[in-house]
Amino acid sequence: MRILITGAAGMVGRKLIARLAKDGALRGRKIAALDLHDIVPPQAPTLAGVDVSIHTGDLSTPGAAASLVASRPDVIFHLAGIVSGEAEANFDLGYRVNLDGTRALFDAVRLAALAPRLVFTSSIAVFGAPFPDVIPDEFHPTPLTSYGTQKLISEVLLADYTRRGFFDGIGIRLPTICVRPGKPNKAASSFFSGIIREPLVGQEAILPVPRSVLHTHASPRSAVNFLIHAAEIDGDAVGPRRNLTMPGVAVTVGEQIEALERTAGPEVAKRIREEPDETIWAIVKGWPTRFESRRARELGFAAETSFDEIIRAHIEDELGGKIA
Amino acid sequence: MRILITGAAGMVGRKLIARLAKDGALRGRKIAALDLHDIVPPQAPTLAGVDVSIHTGDLSTPGAAASLVASRPDVIFHLAGIVSGEAEANFDLGYRVNLDGTRALFDAVRLAALAPRLVFTSSIAVFGAPFPDVIPDEFHPTPLTSYGTQKLISEVLLADYTRRGFFDGIGIRLPTICVRPGKPNKAASSFFSGIIREPLVGQEAILPVPRSVLHTHASPRSAVNFLIHAAEIDGDAVGPRRNLTMPGVAVTVGEQIEALERTAGPEVAKRIREEPDETIWAIVKGWPTRFESRRARELGFAAETSFDEIIRAHIEDELGGKIA
Repeated sequence: MRILITGAAGMVGRKLIARLAKDGALRGRKIAALDLHDIVPPQAPTLAGVDVSIHTGDLSTPGAAASLVASRPDVIFHLAGIVSGEAEANFDLGYRVNLDGTRALFDAVRLAALAPRLVFTSSIAVFGAPFPDVIPDEFHPTPLTSYGTQKLISEVLLADYTRRGFFDGIGIRLPTICVRPGKPNKAASSFFSGIIREPLVGQEAILPVPRSVLHTHASPRSAVNFLIHAAEIDGDAVGPRRNLTMPGVAVTVGEQIEALERTAGPEVAKRIREEPDETIWAIVKGWPTRFESRRARELGFAAETSFDEIIRAHIEDELGGKIA
Repeated sequence: MRILITGAAGMVGRKLIARLAKDGALRGRKIAALDLHDIVPPQAPTLAGVDVSIHTGDLSTPGAAASLVASRPDVIFHLAGIVSGEAEANFDLGYRVNLDGTRALFDAVRLAALAPRLVFTSSIAVFGAPFPDVIPDEFHPTPLTSYGTQKLISEVLLADYTRRGFFDGIGIRLPTICVRPGKPNKAASSFFSGIIREPLVGQEAILPVPRSVLHTHASPRSAVNFLIHAAEIDGDAVGPRRNLTMPGVAVTVGEQIEALERTAGPEVAKRIREEPDETIWAIVKGWPTRFESRRARELGFAAETSFDEIIRAHIEDELGGKIA
């Protein structure tokens, strides 16, 4: 089993590598080789008996994708991409990396006649307001950002290339990943993780929106579970509609905070300071709230069932089980 | 008013040119210039006081789109494309013309900072089975052909480029155009027009599917009406969802034949010979049947209200009012 991961230096990529290292196998076969690609050098795990190769560069550069798939991977995890805010700020960069880079990879696989399983991380950013209360699997994607547009185009290409037999693709639309480890960033969604992550290590966190805001979350651990399941699932059971909205936990910000109180105590939850920010709220108002995710659940994709579970996963995976 | 038409040599292109020549104006302004583009030289209409330019070539050739928009059109009708069967048979050609050509045109407009109204002819091929009985405007597009994939990607780009202010785009998803003038072709949908067109000129037509098959049609005259309305409509009224499923007449094949009997008499309708073709029926079974088209109707797009009307339009526009 030879596995290629693009975007291997990112948060999800690193956690996926750690999981693969722990499992040692995928689709019932021992992992013999890992090709790790990113724009910056990904950290190579030390794995006995696994041939780990590090690749760096821009997939949209002519020849880059062809040379990357020359090792003939059996499974490809295509995680690489420019994030939402950057794709909006830099039109050319977003289209080059998120669209041209993805298409270059897909075409390189097509021309190499590999037909691997290819797992692509899409996003709920393919959807754009207005929304029904619960977004069904059959709801039309009408993105309101260039990032969402690029993800949607990649999804549609993935479905056509799969139908043609060039590869066996599965696109997974990730909900917001929470609790995201690391530092706060400038993403409008940063606070969803911040109000859990910072209080748990004794720091103050800012809540810029009302407690009534409803949003869907899945832990980094679930994101990795989705990727592994997408790599192992029976493609025939998926049928021609290859892009699936992943399940998650739909909660209000108020319910997030109640879960934090239950899990870590009221003193921890008091470290959240409400400081309304109209700009952030205006952005968040346009986001989807709740998904049906019926097909993904039926196909065996599973997320946490409560936000308490999401917090416990963070405490176990990032804090060694300890709360400050 | 300067107008650019790509795909100007095609059936819809020629009818659009004839209509513009007759109207002499668009969006309330006199037409001063027409730029007509196609892969083969379009026929130039003789128009007093209108500067008509003929352009030929492949839009995906570097520089071709930039030189085409150098005349700074106020309105662009982008009709050019490889048809469904050809895009399926020739993967590279379909993606080059239908995706790369469209993106090249969109980018040329973006880089020229023109911000024209841009009307794009999409297709109901963006939808793929299984379908509900009536396909609502919010139904997700999951194309099952490369042609439908390329049209959908163009739609999504059009929406993002419009949101960015690079142009003011409207995508119109055309139903099957019926009665299509000319000769039968190898398209699986050819019989929908053939069973009307051939009997009206004294020729036999083959019906390869059961009379119970339900399908949505609009006349070539309606297709041109849609294009003109899409060029003139208030963009603000459309909002961010720029791609609209056009209305049409949903009838069974049996109802088509009854309309032919009513319009032209039973002797004409007897020229249809039923000769079941399992291959054609298998293709037709996967096609969408009926559309809600609520948004398009609310925005003032209007088609025929009966199939009798579609037949009468054909007799008036193509047969000089006479039936054989």
